[in-house]
Amino acid sequence: MSKLWQKKYNLDKIIEAYTVGDDYVLDQKLAYYDCLASKAHADMLGRIGVLSSEEAEKLNQELDVIISMIEKGDFIILPEQEDCHTAIESLLIQSLGDLGKKIHTARSRNDQILVAMRLYLKDQISDCNKLCKELIDTIHAFIKENGSISFPGYTHMRKAMPSSIELWASCYADSMKDNLLLLSAVMEILDQSPLGTAAGYGVPMEIDRDFTAKELGFSKVQENAIYVQHSRGKFEAMLMHTMVQQMLDLNRLASDLILYSMPEFGYFELPDKFCTGSSIMPQKKNPDLLELMRANLHVLASYETQVINLGSNLISGYNRDAQLTKGPVISGIEITQNSLRIAILLFQEIKVNSDKCASGMTDELFATKRVYDLVKEGVPFREAYQKVAKSIHS
Amino acid sequence: MSKLWQKKYNLDKIIEAYTVGDDYVLDQKLAYYDCLASKAHADMLGRIGVLSSEEAEKLNQELDVIISMIEKGDFIILPEQEDCHTAIESLLIQSLGDLGKKIHTARSRNDQILVAMRLYLKDQISDCNKLCKELIDTIHAFIKENGSISFPGYTHMRKAMPSSIELWASCYADSMKDNLLLLSAVMEILDQSPLGTAAGYGVPMEIDRDFTAKELGFSKVQENAIYVQHSRGKFEAMLMHTMVQQMLDLNRLASDLILYSMPEFGYFELPDKFCTGSSIMPQKKNPDLLELMRANLHVLASYETQVINLGSNLISGYNRDAQLTKGPVISGIEITQNSLRIAILLFQEIKVNSDKCASGMTDELFATKRVYDLVKEGVPFREAYQKVAKSIHS
Amino acid sequence: MSKLWQKKYNLDKIIEAYTVGDDYVLDQKLAYYDCLASKAHADMLGRIGVLSSEEAEKLNQELDVIISMIEKGDFIILPEQEDCHTAIESLLIQSLGDLGKKIHTARSRNDQILVAMRLYLKDQISDCNKLCKELIDTIHAFIKENGSISFPGYTHMRKAMPSSIELWASCYADSMKDNLLLLSAVMEILDQSPLGTAAGYGVPMEIDRDFTAKELGFSKVQENAIYVQHSRGKFEAMLMHTMVQQMLDLNRLASDLILYSMPEFGYFELPDKFCTGSSIMPQKKNPDLLELMRANLHVLASYETQVINLGSNLISGYNRDAQLTKGPVISGIEITQNSLRIAILLFQEIKVNSDKCASGMTDELFATKRVYDLVKEGVPFREAYQKVAKSIHS
Amino acid sequence: MSKLWQKKYNLDKIIEAYTVGDDYVLDQKLAYYDCLASKAHADMLGRIGVLSSEEAEKLNQELDVIISMIEKGDFIILPEQEDCHTAIESLLIQSLGDLGKKIHTARSRNDQILVAMRLYLKDQISDCNKLCKELIDTIHAFIKENGSISFPGYTHMRKAMPSSIELWASCYADSMKDNLLLLSAVMEILDQSPLGTAAGYGVPMEIDRDFTAKELGFSKVQENAIYVQHSRGKFEAMLMHTMVQQMLDLNRLASDLILYSMPEFGYFELPDKFCTGSSIMPQKKNPDLLELMRANLHVLASYETQVINLGSNLISGYNRDAQLTKGPVISGIEITQNSLRIAILLFQEIKVNSDKCASGMTDELFATKRVYDLVKEGVPFREAYQKVAKSIHS
Repeated sequence: MSKLWQKKYNLDKIIEAYTVGDDYVLDQKLAYYDCLASKAHADMLGRIGVLSSEEAEKLNQELDVIISMIEKGDFIILPEQEDCHTAIESLLIQSLGDLGKKIHTARSRNDQILVAMRLYLKDQISDCNKLCKELIDTIHAFIKENGSISFPGYTHMRKAMPSSIELWASCYADSMKDNLLLLSAVMEILDQSPLGTAAGYGVPMEIDRDFTAKELGFSKVQENAIYVQHSRGKFEAMLMHTMVQQMLDLNRLASDLILYSMPEFGYFELPDKFCTGSSIMPQKKNPDLLELMRANLHVLASYETQVINLGSNLISGYNRDAQLTKGPVISGIEITQNSLRIAILLFQEIKVNSDKCASGMTDELFATKRVYDLVKEGVPFREAYQKVAKSIHS
Repeated sequence: MSKLWQKKYNLDKIIEAYTVGDDYVLDQKLAYYDCLASKAHADMLGRIGVLSSEEAEKLNQELDVIISMIEKGDFIILPEQEDCHTAIESLLIQSLGDLGKKIHTARSRNDQILVAMRLYLKDQISDCNKLCKELIDTIHAFIKENGSISFPGYTHMRKAMPSSIELWASCYADSMKDNLLLLSAVMEILDQSPLGTAAGYGVPMEIDRDFTAKELGFSKVQENAIYVQHSRGKFEAMLMHTMVQQMLDLNRLASDLILYSMPEFGYFELPDKFCTGSSIMPQKKNPDLLELMRANLHVLASYETQVINLGSNLISGYNRDAQLTKGPVISGIEITQNSLRIAILLFQEIKVNSDKCASGMTDELFATKRVYDLVKEGVPFREAYQKVAKSIHS
Repeated sequence: MSKLWQKKYNLDKIIEAYTVGDDYVLDQKLAYYDCLASKAHADMLGRIGVLSSEEAEKLNQELDVIISMIEKGDFIILPEQEDCHTAIESLLIQSLGDLGKKIHTARSRNDQILVAMRLYLKDQISDCNKLCKELIDTIHAFIKENGSISFPGYTHMRKAMPSSIELWASCYADSMKDNLLLLSAVMEILDQSPLGTAAGYGVPMEIDRDFTAKELGFSKVQENAIYVQHSRGKFEAMLMHTMVQQMLDLNRLASDLILYSMPEFGYFELPDKFCTGSSIMPQKKNPDLLELMRANLHVLASYETQVINLGSNLISGYNRDAQLTKGPVISGIEITQNSLRIAILLFQEIKVNSDKCASGMTDELFATKRVYDLVKEGVPFREAYQKVAKSIHS
Repeated sequence: MSKLWQKKYNLDKIIEAYTVGDDYVLDQKLAYYDCLASKAHADMLGRIGVLSSEEAEKLNQELDVIISMIEKGDFIILPEQEDCHTAIESLLIQSLGDLGKKIHTARSRNDQILVAMRLYLKDQISDCNKLCKELIDTIHAFIKENGSISFPGYTHMRKAMPSSIELWASCYADSMKDNLLLLSAVMEILDQSPLGTAAGYGVPMEIDRDFTAKELGFSKVQENAIYVQHSRGKFEAMLMHTMVQQMLDLNRLASDLILYSMPEFGYFELPDKFCTGSSIMPQKKNPDLLELMRANLHVLASYETQVINLGSNLISGYNRDAQLTKGPVISGIEITQNSLRIAILLFQEIKVNSDKCASGMTDELFATKRVYDLVKEGVPFREAYQKVAKSIHS
């Protein structure tokens, strides 16, 4: 029918590319965790007698070799291998021959993806946890230095009542503390071992799931094999939402700082390294880093949506659609972590311009105080309010 | 310029309608909570001497009268009153005159919305909690009756390995248990009193926030006034996400049942009351209720997105955009609760057709078992797999 | 099992409420179009001999009676009737007896919903078209009065180069013109008659689809009956996207005006009727209307997403999930139309503060001009740029 | 404060990585278009006397050299160059010295991105256009071969009325035809030249925008410089929506084929190359390619959402947030094009199993026909319906 499909070769390439997607790239992040899980699986196979203890030991040593390849950046996944699981198993077979072929007993590739991803996610939650805490500490240090400075509080983007750097900055510290609560709840939920559920219906063999769960540091076994499959996507969506929560805060922080560092306000000053110039306007110092921090909320929010919808309107049991959750999840986590790093840096480097803050403290900010001065003299609130309002608007 | 704008009256109506939106309808759900918060606020004003204890008492009695109006369905909010706060204050002034005007001392409307919404959300979380637990119990009862029946397990919508009603149904029970963990974390985060932060910058007066927090049953005070404003939208998004998590499960449940109740499978039978007919095809029994349960995930997911985006790219301090979160949040919660009710009913009423389940247990489901039978005889896994595969595909 | 389900009555009510949803309310908007379509259908049935011409005539007269009931606001749909189609057919049977029962020959309820919705959507596109054009005219009138005033042009929310009210305002006029192009393409796509495809597989009877299409003013027949079903949701998503496009413009307009009407800038002044006060701060004039216009983009965008996802991962042929598209579509159209009305009003009423605009025209805005003055004197661009940059930043 | 930030070097790297993002990778797709635009710009500078005609000619030749580098895959963008614009200008300066520095006269980087992206998008629309047409042709060829086969039509995932391969397949052809209409409207809207608007406020110099527009094949100049900036994101969202429309169709197609190729139905047979096996279950032939096609709708829909939201709640004039639209747009287009290629291949390769189709044509599909047989004998429709219904359900 058309030139496009004439060559058999191209056709197969299109199909292969469509099927593999970015997995061979993304799996670089997961290979280490797959090795950990394979080590635990080999130990378990040794324990239940499928492997001799010598065989289990050899597999462990070889997996350690692969781990050091990964750490040195020498581990490569070829597109035709599709994923890290095939690449690792190939290496095992290359070095260990038939023994390498035995590692896949009593598990399926679904198992492997799930446990590697789960371990990866647990590590990422820990990292986010550390970064959030570091951000909170940095905010407190920032408050120590600048907290007592007064500057205008806004509502509806109009001057409202007096605020202070402390009040403003500790809002973000408090919000991050609540993010930590959510993160730790999600950690608790994710901290269950999927290993041993195979393709979602178990394996027709007695295996020791408690053993692998314990060896891998999970606090419990995720019992139901269908639920293990169902939780792929479900847990990812949950985690993506915690990332969105963190990004919501950073989005607001960026929005505040972009506005308040405008010369028209000048409450904050951004260090040069946070700004870029223009190729046509020589005077420009643009807050690009803050704009990107603001923008990245939307990337995260769309990733969460994507993960939710990829798992929708499908029957239970594994569906290939789940593969596509890997990309947004890994990318979304990295964006959030980098955004947290930028935010930490921000609070270390921004300057509060106390003169501009002081000159921003104009009269209208004290209108409510004048109402309450009258209230304290005994005037009913609604009447005091009217009195002050009249004095302003007329 | 145009006829459209000739009449002053219409113009004002368009502006009013655009500004008020559905608030006067939605606030019917919040009025009760606003009364509770006003009672606590009046007590606090009495305690700090702004009101006499007699005045505080009178306000309390009158608010109780309004609460019973609400309970009887006699409480009405006029569109021109905009919201429940104005409607309630109007009633207080109507009955108590000047005293009614004093209730608004040391608070703002933002305060009121926040505390009423927070109390409402806490109650709704409790309700969801109860419904999730009831669903879990119902699933267990269902398993007791039908659990031992075998039926096919699918992956990629193809027969995979043997499953059972117990394995299938307990997936949903386990998933709901994890939803409970998330719900309870979100409850803990939301359980802080926003009352007393006024418009986001406090009130120029000494008030007793601990007292109102305790009286209203909050486990702590949400200290930072700017954070209180920021948490509107943030907390709502978090709660919407827990609803999405529940709906993800119900969406999958519905997808399973719609497929498995097709005559082509017949594993499940839906009771007539879950089905509707067609106006043109007399033979039809359509699973409308399940289709709507499936569809409602997408309503919830879009509501969560809406709430997230309404709060994005805005500076801190209250922005009117937050008002629009009320609609999706209240509607989203109700849809989720009703969906849970339908799911409970489902597990009470659906029938498992054991004959159809049995005839679904065809040969290919046991291919993996045959592989493992060979493995147990000592054949290496990859070889055993090839052997069975060859016997099937040739 | 639980008190919740003890009473049969409540159970049925929950199921009914879940199934019917808001249809009986939303269908008030569609009843008129259902009558139009029924009139054309009756004529067609007369034409092909299923009805006598007298019968067709009687049905037409009775449908005109119902249309005038609708216009007077006397037409009511009871929740138990579920939708306008049942309510209208009931009225026909009430007045015409057996003849009323014949109107449903050769059509299904799906047919009716589709054709009524299609006619409704075509009318709404026309209305949006008119409103967009009126907005463009209003912008041009606004430019006529204020266009020559210079004020700062911003990039990255930093002063960039000189702009003018004309340049700024005509951006919105031009954008609306492109919206008109998109609207008219979508109108062309939607302008095909679905009537006569029944439940997606036609009717086992010779009918005259060309006749009804022509009588209802469609420019062609949508031939494929399965496509008719598939286009429900698809067309709605397309239309929602055109609404999102309009709201994107209004969102930016609102964002501009909220910022530029801050006293810190003062380039624009909002009339009082666009602002609201605060219950605690007597000085406040908040731009609520603009904030809501800004916020409503997110409502529309989430509605579009909802419509897209409701139709995803489903097989062809009608699925009940499609019912839920009605709510977001009708609500989304109304919000967009009202937002356009508000925008028209805005351009009629906002004032440009020429003094503030003039004092905003500070030196840095002319840095690029200084570069180009050097370029005109023969200095290479990159050198001229460096020269001016050095003079500013040192 | 923390080890994390001790090394100055790392800090700068984090900032650089956050700012540059994937631009240096994505811009490989845009470099060719940037060269085209630079050639036209050089010609224009020659025409208006900023460059001599010899200089313009030299730049053109050098840009042609770069174009052939790009075509051969020899063009590389270093991360520290950030984007293709810098990389190309560096090459020009390297070969041409001072003359290379003159190319940036009378334009800004914003200009360059906009025009390169616009040209890229126009080419991609053309490609989609071709692919859609090819898909339509392939469907028609498929119908020629299999169209007359009858198989069941479903509604609510229940057998409804007789359908045919022709009716089913031509639904997708018709839908694609409507996609072509939308694509061509969006092409018309995008087909305007942004070049010459610099950073959104023009250049302080007389340039000839008509000339460059014509040379680059645009059908008109996009006059308003602010609108040019605003249309970035707006146009991308519009285009993403057309991609979503195509993916909606492919999503439904995939959903149909996944279900109908289940052995439980067997209406269609998928060729082996569309299927993959399982690492644990030897019998498996999974429809992975179809599942990924189904899933990719959600990727596209989330990309559209992302693009919309990245441009929301921002004032007019360029904001850096727009940079992030590049990734989802380029990736989204490629996914759609590859999905179309897969769909074409599908219709070339799937087999209709006429035996299974025939045995699917069970009795209940003819219930409506039986009603209409009665109607033709003179029984009123509602009565005929009741009669047939009773015969079935009792």
